[in-house]
Amino acid sequence: MVKVNPHYAEVSENYMFLDVVKRARAFTEKNPGVKILKLAIGNTTEPLVPSVVAAMHASVDKLAARESYTGYGDEQGNTDLRQAVATWYGARGVTLDASEVFISDGAKPDCANIVSIFSDESIVAIQDPVYPVYRDANTIGGRRIVYMAATEANGFVPALPSEHADIIFLCSPNNPTGAVMTREQLQAFVDYALANKSVIIFDAAYSEYIRDANIPRSIYEIPRAVECAIEIQSFSKAAGFTGVRLGWTIVPQALATEDAAAGALNKYWHRRQSTMFNGASNIAQEGGLAALSPQGQKETHEQVDYYMENARVIREGLTKAGFTVFGGESAPYIWLKCPAGLSSWQFFDQILEKAHVVTTPGSGFGGNGEGYMRVSAFGHREDIEEAVRSIAANLKAV
Amino acid sequence: MVKVNPHYAEVSENYMFLDVVKRARAFTEKNPGVKILKLAIGNTTEPLVPSVVAAMHASVDKLAARESYTGYGDEQGNTDLRQAVATWYGARGVTLDASEVFISDGAKPDCANIVSIFSDESIVAIQDPVYPVYRDANTIGGRRIVYMAATEANGFVPALPSEHADIIFLCSPNNPTGAVMTREQLQAFVDYALANKSVIIFDAAYSEYIRDANIPRSIYEIPRAVECAIEIQSFSKAAGFTGVRLGWTIVPQALATEDAAAGALNKYWHRRQSTMFNGASNIAQEGGLAALSPQGQKETHEQVDYYMENARVIREGLTKAGFTVFGGESAPYIWLKCPAGLSSWQFFDQILEKAHVVTTPGSGFGGNGEGYMRVSAFGHREDIEEAVRSIAANLKAV
Repeated sequence: MVKVNPHYAEVSENYMFLDVVKRARAFTEKNPGVKILKLAIGNTTEPLVPSVVAAMHASVDKLAARESYTGYGDEQGNTDLRQAVATWYGARGVTLDASEVFISDGAKPDCANIVSIFSDESIVAIQDPVYPVYRDANTIGGRRIVYMAATEANGFVPALPSEHADIIFLCSPNNPTGAVMTREQLQAFVDYALANKSVIIFDAAYSEYIRDANIPRSIYEIPRAVECAIEIQSFSKAAGFTGVRLGWTIVPQALATEDAAAGALNKYWHRRQSTMFNGASNIAQEGGLAALSPQGQKETHEQVDYYMENARVIREGLTKAGFTVFGGESAPYIWLKCPAGLSSWQFFDQILEKAHVVTTPGSGFGGNGEGYMRVSAFGHREDIEEAVRSIAANLKAV
Repeated sequence: MVKVNPHYAEVSENYMFLDVVKRARAFTEKNPGVKILKLAIGNTTEPLVPSVVAAMHASVDKLAARESYTGYGDEQGNTDLRQAVATWYGARGVTLDASEVFISDGAKPDCANIVSIFSDESIVAIQDPVYPVYRDANTIGGRRIVYMAATEANGFVPALPSEHADIIFLCSPNNPTGAVMTREQLQAFVDYALANKSVIIFDAAYSEYIRDANIPRSIYEIPRAVECAIEIQSFSKAAGFTGVRLGWTIVPQALATEDAAAGALNKYWHRRQSTMFNGASNIAQEGGLAALSPQGQKETHEQVDYYMENARVIREGLTKAGFTVFGGESAPYIWLKCPAGLSSWQFFDQILEKAHVVTTPGSGFGGNGEGYMRVSAFGHREDIEEAVRSIAANLKAV
């Protein structure tokens, strides 16, 4: 008699963002014709850049001809793309070998699946609030979770785990708070991991949004991090690949645990991916290679600048209207404090009903997110401006 | 102190096909200039069909323009594609709702991950020999496996599990033997599953290769299978999407277990996918929609016919040369018996060294595959013909 995985009962029925979408849909059904502005899900809105578009058309044409058609690629990704990623790190002073790069179909699946190379008994430390995938995936996997509180008091950068943790998820620039970790703060986590034989899973999906040259864009900028950290990256926010699906994960050859020598974890992830994954779409990979070219980098950086100007518009507009906001300076998210006495979902409803703007309730990211809203800078400029005007005009800041 | 997943030590270091590739590469390095013909991995070789190519170009153009650009899609797939899959089943007499269709990035990840909605204590029944993903993924997941022997004596269609199984993986048309299960044989498994409260995972990735109108192409052609079976499908072999990555999984609303009412497992898989997956590539999905259109079906069926003519060339050529072969009549795989006294890997080396043809050792698919080779019908016709001639001319059948 087959039984179900009992841990599904421990997570909410829906992935949090689905609840946001559902509530927005319900409002639209009740108020047909009312234009809704979406600053909720971190969903890119600007078109793919020209060099990526050209590479993808060329990739489709290759697949259309008998002489150039290719079938399965290597599960770990195309050799040229893996090399391009290693080179990309080289340009920021981080030396990695192409064998340490695993191309993925985006950061989310890898954030959820990477833990499977470790023991089920591992204790997992997760920031609160944070991207809900770490929490939900580890809950479904039946792992014990220790939360690290990120609050206004600590500038939304948590202290080290208060009890022993085997696996530590860090997200910087942070989703949802927009907080970034300094070199010293990251160093403290690396020191902890080395001392406690723990592994850090560093989600760097928003690294291209860092504007402060002193903030590390890769965990590997910290000495000895290759011995204790896995880094997960994404083309989603850096190149508009949210729907195209492409990312990568670095499992350094130097990464080791007490029971696995250097190299073993790289092999395990290789085995995991070649058994349970079949490579990212070849068209996406050709597009990703173009995004990492000098011209592609120029074009995508301009797009990131566009979203960061949106972030400035939101940050300054809401501040001027009297709201208290955090983040948005090296991240595409603004962390908006709810007016006193309002819960995240209460304020969500107010913003939706009065300003016709969809945001994301901070409480969906963890208990410490209660009383905050995540406002996303992904959107067309005119929509961002209209949304900020509408919030300022229709809602009380206090 | 973090520990690794101990079950990685229970699988071979490499996914089996990688060993085949490595041995072929070593031969090429020792014998530069010698042309190697590949009938090994089931890798499509013919170009994407015109209607798919047109749809993919259109999809890239959509992503290149501000007005038509889209970011994240629904994790479970585009609504129109889910509906098209339901309609596709309707055309073969199977009634499914679009909510039961989950678009994936191919059959392999779903075959590996679907078990995660069930208890870790589940006992899993797997055919021997069979596609190694079921075995490897469940071994890495720490599940107990019961093997169902597929041998010459039972026509390579196994009997019911000899001891209780909670989850039963079936693959028909079978990879690697090319055997297909009759309606009566499938009915017996459905009866077993209903009586024992088990769930069948039916891998139908090769259904388009079935030439015998009496052989079910979907498990749901068997009455009450919706109550006990999940079906996994792929665009890889039906439309040449091996590198493009697209498939689907059906989790019927009627599927229930003792501890989960009808609908719950559909919700769990939805939760799993929205937490640990982020949708198949939008370009692949637009291509898949075109492949399911009337014109796309016509074009892809012609391509499948091409590969099936390859299968006939292999089957008849090897038979004429005195070899004993099975399969290849409703499947793109021919199951070739090794000459007496030779193991699969010994014969693999002989075929490679004497005929310069790469095949896949049957032993890689399970203990009962020892003494057989899988010969793939995916290839250009002229290569297939040359490979068959070369094997016939250079190897002894007895």
